[in-house]
Parts: sequence; C-alpha cells; structure tokens
Amino acid sequence: MNKVDLNCDLGESFGRYTLGMDEEVIPLVSSANIACGYHASDPVVMERTVGLAAGAGIGIGAHPGFPDLMGFGRRNMNVTPAEAKAYVTYQLGALYGFCRSKGVKLQHVKPHGALYNMAGKDAKLAEAIVEAVYEFDSDIILLGLSGSEMIRAAQRKGLRCANEFFADRGYEEDGSLVDRRKEGAMITDEDFAVKRLVRVIKENKIATVTGKDIDMKIDSVCVHGDGAKALAFVEKIRQKLADEGIAVVPLSEMV
Amino acid sequence: MNKVDLNCDLGESFGRYTLGMDEEVIPLVSSANIACGYHASDPVVMERTVGLAAGAGIGIGAHPGFPDLMGFGRRNMNVTPAEAKAYVTYQLGALYGFCRSKGVKLQHVKPHGALYNMAGKDAKLAEAIVEAVYEFDSDIILLGLSGSEMIRAAQRKGLRCANEFFADRGYEEDGSLVDRRKEGAMITDEDFAVKRLVRVIKENKIATVTGKDIDMKIDSVCVHGDGAKALAFVEKIRQKLADEGIAVVPLSEMV
Amino acid sequence: MNKVDLNCDLGESFGRYTLGMDEEVIPLVSSANIACGYHASDPVVMERTVGLAAGAGIGIGAHPGFPDLMGFGRRNMNVTPAEAKAYVTYQLGALYGFCRSKGVKLQHVKPHGALYNMAGKDAKLAEAIVEAVYEFDSDIILLGLSGSEMIRAAQRKGLRCANEFFADRGYEEDGSLVDRRKEGAMITDEDFAVKRLVRVIKENKIATVTGKDIDMKIDSVCVHGDGAKALAFVEKIRQKLADEGIAVVPLSEMV
Amino acid sequence: MNKVDLNCDLGESFGRYTLGMDEEVIPLVSSANIACGYHASDPVVMERTVGLAAGAGIGIGAHPGFPDLMGFGRRNMNVTPAEAKAYVTYQLGALYGFCRSKGVKLQHVKPHGALYNMAGKDAKLAEAIVEAVYEFDSDIILLGLSGSEMIRAAQRKGLRCANEFFADRGYEEDGSLVDRRKEGAMITDEDFAVKRLVRVIKENKIATVTGKDIDMKIDSVCVHGDGAKALAFVEKIRQKLADEGIAVVPLSEMV
Repeated sequence: MNKVDLNCDLGESFGRYTLGMDEEVIPLVSSANIACGYHASDPVVMERTVGLAAGAGIGIGAHPGFPDLMGFGRRNMNVTPAEAKAYVTYQLGALYGFCRSKGVKLQHVKPHGALYNMAGKDAKLAEAIVEAVYEFDSDIILLGLSGSEMIRAAQRKGLRCANEFFADRGYEEDGSLVDRRKEGAMITDEDFAVKRLVRVIKENKIATVTGKDIDMKIDSVCVHGDGAKALAFVEKIRQKLADEGIAVVPLSEMV
Repeated sequence: MNKVDLNCDLGESFGRYTLGMDEEVIPLVSSANIACGYHASDPVVMERTVGLAAGAGIGIGAHPGFPDLMGFGRRNMNVTPAEAKAYVTYQLGALYGFCRSKGVKLQHVKPHGALYNMAGKDAKLAEAIVEAVYEFDSDIILLGLSGSEMIRAAQRKGLRCANEFFADRGYEEDGSLVDRRKEGAMITDEDFAVKRLVRVIKENKIATVTGKDIDMKIDSVCVHGDGAKALAFVEKIRQKLADEGIAVVPLSEMV
Repeated sequence: MNKVDLNCDLGESFGRYTLGMDEEVIPLVSSANIACGYHASDPVVMERTVGLAAGAGIGIGAHPGFPDLMGFGRRNMNVTPAEAKAYVTYQLGALYGFCRSKGVKLQHVKPHGALYNMAGKDAKLAEAIVEAVYEFDSDIILLGLSGSEMIRAAQRKGLRCANEFFADRGYEEDGSLVDRRKEGAMITDEDFAVKRLVRVIKENKIATVTGKDIDMKIDSVCVHGDGAKALAFVEKIRQKLADEGIAVVPLSEMV
Repeated sequence: MNKVDLNCDLGESFGRYTLGMDEEVIPLVSSANIACGYHASDPVVMERTVGLAAGAGIGIGAHPGFPDLMGFGRRNMNVTPAEAKAYVTYQLGALYGFCRSKGVKLQHVKPHGALYNMAGKDAKLAEAIVEAVYEFDSDIILLGLSGSEMIRAAQRKGLRCANEFFADRGYEEDGSLVDRRKEGAMITDEDFAVKRLVRVIKENKIATVTGKDIDMKIDSVCVHGDGAKALAFVEKIRQKLADEGIAVVPLSEMV
C-alpha cells in the first residue's frame, strides 16, 4: 500500500507570543517538528507541545535552528560546522529532555529555516548536523530536502534519513527547489499541487518548472498550520490521500 | 574511610568571553557543575567542558540557572514552579545531549545562583526542580544546600540527593547560611575554614556563627576555580584532606 | 473643560510574532507607550510603531521593561537601582533614536510590567528611574501609578509626572491597586467602570473596593489594544467621554 | 602639522564577563568605539564606558553590531538593509542616551565586525547604515574602511566620513584588506607596521601586499586594547608618532 508522512513545524510560540494553530493541525499530521528555543519556542512551550504531540500519538522531531530569535532562524549566518554541530546537539538534547520526561520517543531531527537551506547545499554543514544527530542517537531519522547535501551526508554516515517534499514549491530539473525569487517558485494552484503530490508518491515522478519530468522518491510532505488557509490545504491533502488509498504514517514507518 | 566530594562550577565562558580557570581546577575536584546556556555558557563551551570533565574522569552535573545571562543568573526572578520545572528540564536535556554524545554519564544536577538560593527556601520551587530531575532520570543526584527545601523535596520524592557545604561561608544555628549582608557571612581565615571542613566531615559537627555547635552531615564541598587565589585554596583543602586521610570521590560514591 | 489622556501599550510585536491591534487602537488613544526591545519589540517594530504613532499625531512614550523577553517583563527581577537606571537610559535612548530620526518628540516614559509595579512600591528603584529620565531630558514626563513611589520620586526630583488610572482595576482606600489575587481586583462591569472613570475625572473622587470614597487626581487612563473586546471597551470609553464633554488630549497637555 | 586619530573598540564587557583593558588603553587613544549591547556590552557597561571616555576627553562613537552576542557580531548575517538600518538607529540611540545623560557629544559611528565588513562591500547595506546615522544626526561622522562602500555611501549622502586604517593588516592594490585566509593578511613585524603607518600619514602612500605602492588617505588608525601585547603596540605607535611630530587628535578634528 502507498504511504507517506505529513510533517508540520509546531511549537513555535514564545513567551507571551502565540504562533501557529498547533491544536488544530496536530490531528491532521503524522510527524511534528518541534522548535527548540533558538529560532522560536521556550521551555514552557516545548513541554506543552511535546505533550500535545505525544497525546496525539504522532512522531516527534527536534527542529533546531540558528540562535536568531529576532529573525526566526530565517537569516543565513556563517557559523562554523563545529558551531552548527554544537547548536544541534544542544537543541536536540533539550527537546529530548521533554520527550524522556514524558516517556515518548524522539523520532527525527529536521533543521529549521536558514540552517535547513544552508545545510542542504553545504556538505560540511550537513556533515556537522549529521554527526550531531548520529553521536546522540544513531537511531534518529534526519529529515532533509530530497536529494540535498543533508541526505547525502546522512547516507555517507549511515544515519537513517528521509526525503522531504514541499507540496507548494516548484522544483528544478536537478531536483532542487526553485529559488523563491524566480517564477514558478510557489505552486498556488492547490488542485495541481495535490495531483502532483499523489503522482510523486505513486509513481516517484514529478514535473519540474521547465515541464520536464524527473524521478523523485519522497518520504514526507511538509505542511503548515499557521493559518486557516494552511489548515484547509492540509485537509484537502488528507482527503485526496485517503481517496487515493495512500496511508498517512509517521516517519518511523517510512524509512 | 572518610570521604567527600569536591564540586566546582565549570564551563561558564560564553562566546568570546572567558571565565574561570577550568583546565587548572578540573584536576583538583571530583564533580563538575556545568553551566547550560541560560545564565552562562553556550553549546560550543558545553561541548568542550563536558569533554574536559569526561577526560578527567570526574562526575558531570548540569548547572541550570535562570534565563538571565546579563545578570549571570544571580538575580531573583519570580518564575512560577511550572516555568522553573521546564527551564530545568530544558537545560538538563541540553547538557545530557553532550554527555550522551560523548558516552559519559550525567551524575547530578545543581541549580545555579538565584535559582539555587530561592529553591533552597521555597518548597514549591524546590519540588518543581525535583520533579524535573526525577521525571528525566530518577537516578540523577540533586545537589543542594544541606538542610534546605531542595533536600527535603528530593527526600519526599525519593530522588537521591546530596548535601552541599560551603567552606568559606558562616552558618546559622538552624544550619542555613549567614546572610551575605551580615557579619560572619564569609570565612576569610583559610586555616580555620579548612579545620572546620575536616571536622564536619569526620565528626558531622560545625561551629555556627554564634559559637554554638550543630550537627551537619555533608556530601560535597563547593570550591571555586575563578582565579589564582581560589585555586590555591582548593589545593590547600586537597592537601589537608589528604593529610587527614579523607578521600576525594565523585558525588556518585557519596550517596 | 475637563480632559484626560488615554494611553496604550503599543509596538509589542517581535520578529515573526505579532501582538496587539496597533493600527486599530492608535486612532482611539492620545498617547502611546512603545516597547523598547527588552521585554518586547525589536528595532524594526520600533521604527514602524514610532512611524504609526507619529503619523497619527499622538504623544509618544518609551515603555522600558526588564530584560526578560521570555517572561514579557512581567516577572519581578531583583535588579539593583544602578542596573534599573542603566536599563531605562538604554531603552529610552533607543526609542529616542527612532523619534529623532522621524523628527518627533519623545513625550513621556512609562515603565512596563514588573518594573512599573516594583518601582511603584520601591523608592530606591523609583528614584533610579526618575534619575535616568531626568538626566536624559528633564522635560520628559514620567507616567506612573497615581500616588505611587514613582510619582513621589519624580516630584522630589522636579521631574514632570502624570498620574495613571486603571479603568478596569479596583482601588484600596490608600489609593493603591487591589492585589490581583484578591476579590475586587478586576472591574468586569464595563458600565460601572466607565461611570467611575467619568467621576474621577470630573470630581476627583473614586469609590474604593471597600465602598469608601477617596480623593484621586488622574491625568491618564490606561487602555488596551490586544483584542477585539479591549478595542470595544476603548470605544465605549471614548463615546462616554465625548458624551460627558471630556476632551481626550496627549499627556503633554495634561501636566 | 601632520595628525591622525587613534580609535579603539571599548566597552565590550558583558554582565559578569570582562573583556579588554579599557582603563589602560583609553589614555593612549583619541576616539572610542563603544559597543551598544548587540554583539557585546550591556547598559551598565555602556554607562561606565561612556563615563570613562568622557572623563578622558576622547571622542565617543557608537559601535553597533549584529544581534549575535554568542558570535560577538563576527558572523555574517543576511539581514535586509531595512533591518540593518533599524539595528543601527536602535544602538546609536541607546549609546546616545548615555552620552546625553552625561552631557557629552556623540562624535562618530563605526559598525562592528561582520556588519563593518559586509557594509564595506555591499552598497545597499552601506546606504542603510548611512541613512540611519544621517537621519539621527547629520553631524555625526561615519568611520569606515578607507575606500569602502561605506565611505562611498556616506559621500553620496553628504554625511561626514573618515577613512580607517589598520596598522597590522596587509592591503591589496585596490586598497582593500588582504583576506585573512591569504598570506600577507597580517603584518607581524611591528617596526615595519609603524613605519608604514608614518608613511601613509605623511605621504599618503602605502606599499601593498604585492610590493606596489598605492595612494591612500587615512583619518584614523584602529588599535586594540585587549591584551598586554596590544597595549605595548599602541604605546609604540604613540611614541613613533610623537617622534615624527604627528599629533594624535579625535576624529572630529580630522574631518
């Protein structure tokens, strides 16, 4: 039977600030990427979010980012690989603290924002992240952009990894995302996006921005819970996946 | 044979800022309280400090503090018990990240500065900290002021705990520390301090600021590595302990 | 003619986090307390908020708080008076930076949250804040709780000050606010609150929580813009003030 | 008479952390670049540092950096020009707060670390910084690398600017600094460095890393106070300048 994981960034509130509709989106996804206090979140939010995800029985992942709360971890920072490794170990350990206290497993790690993007293209940075995860627990899955340096670094190290797919983003012929500043970067036609998603799951093929088909194998789809529109899109995806007989399962059942 | 643990706060550097003579003091102590990035330290410093402590074979402890880097965690903050619990879980998990990655055990937790002082007197705060430690790993030792609310809370919960002694501080008849603003708060006569320490280890008795003797059982002595004078004092203590046939052992061998 | 200032905390967003309905509440108030990056806000938010307030022609004030973004500046911190003074100078100067760049005046300073509350009762802290403001610009108005230590410290120093009134809070016979943990702390009957407000403006009298009347002279009323309900209450107040012939004017026209 | 400004980064301590030998280096320099709480420093340190610099009668400048305390502002961050502008206004205003409170003038602004380097090459970033300074006070001097985009942006805007020279760095034929990763980046021969400095002041000529002479006009020399060796080098420079009849004057007397 065909299957796929739906992952969503969660637990991005901070102190007095609320972000995201966590309680609404949790029932719709199978894996949660939980912010770890660097680009977003704080210990009280992390405790609550791990509790919500654990209660729903979905896979729990650490979502480490740059130490840039003001920029939400979205701004490139030229940290060294050693710094990146230490930042990931720190945030991974911190989130694990809440998992262990609640008796739930830490399933995966997905770097956030600029760290995700930079490590997708920079082999040294990717290796540093992979080492941080592997040395902490070689059973944790690294979730990275399909075909990126993160996936390659994980494969070299022997760390389990999962290919992430973005339903609302255009792809280049080499399998990378279309740069956000270029035409075709965002897929705004939801019906097209959903059809493309079903095809990549069933046939491992995707139409690129140029029109050419390429092979692609995906394990997890990134969805969002930061607004009513985003939620409606997730519901649409779930409906379509159900109609197509595609099961939604946590990442641990994909790799 | 008589024995005692010597503990020291370590890993308090931050980014470009260096604090403490960690490499010099590590050979002199048996347990390290390692800062966790809230009142001091950062992931790079934590990675290095856990490595140094592990290399020396001393007991490793988490040293969680208030989120007040500017005040070095020394300023009282009226956090709720739930906040304190989450802050401890977060920092404990983060330090555990580095321990696990290096294959070393996390022996104990000692709250830092204002958190230590407040939790020593506030049963609710003490219980929150004890719960954080116990839920993460009920085998970890809580290191708190002898006779304080932290010790009582640990005992109620069934968490292993250790009584900390301050060689350079005066004590009241009820076993509490003399307030720093009062006469007799600091013991400046090092010979007297060392003799008092030997006596409390061997006889479980200590002369209070009023001159009256009280019973006191201690497991660990707090020493400092933040300067040449502090280091010399630790060496003096070690020499005296050796002369008196008192072994210096990690906390895990005390409780 | 009777008149009063309506002040509101503004510019409390931070990075990716939005808080408050600033654009909706600005047309309803006459003075803005703008967060300065310690308990809330960042430079980009400050730039935008000063611009919005300047465009609306309302009085602009600095709203300095404790360096506790995680706790939104609502947690008491036992800073020294020297620290408090430096924190106020820093935040006041930072906000002034945006005012000067836009060619608008900095009208007042209102400490935020725990700093406001602590300085209302602690003469040393109040004096430190007053000194910070006075030394920067002795023409700035300090906005503090009517009858508090802040008002007294300003009067001793010769700094202009304004008495703040809370429309939704109960008052004790000594003119202090009813503690939030006690009955009568919050006024939930909006009609009563509005009537009480009109009376304190016109007659300088207010019914306390015990039922007894006391004298009270107020310059400014604290209102909120953090939700639809809060906005509706401000509109209700404005309507009633208009009906009663009470003008709403910036703080600078009150003192 | 020949003259030059000697500038030094000061006030880089933070909370419990001390950095730099400010009191020793202040008598040796004519202008101080004072950290503003983003990459280093806090309000208490700023208050003290402005006081020290004012007491010594040297020129006072703001030294704004990236919001990256953990990386000491030395890591490139891809902030937008609008963010950079707001960050500079914020930090400039904050430092001005202490200057105004002490009745001293704010002479100049020198961006720090990665912000300095990035703005030296990025015209948009340079323009954003220039606008921040100009809009706050068009009389303030911008101190930037000689021949950099910062200098060009200031000249386009009509903001006074000063050319900074690094006595211990090699220069390329185009007047830029030799990349730190390349040979010849650092000048380790102090005698050569001092002779080169005298020549660039007197003859406006400098030998580049290739051996070829280029024209260069400098206003200020960057020196360091972060250690005994650095201090000795500053003393050597001062002695040589005195021997050569070159006066050391604040930046305001250079441009």
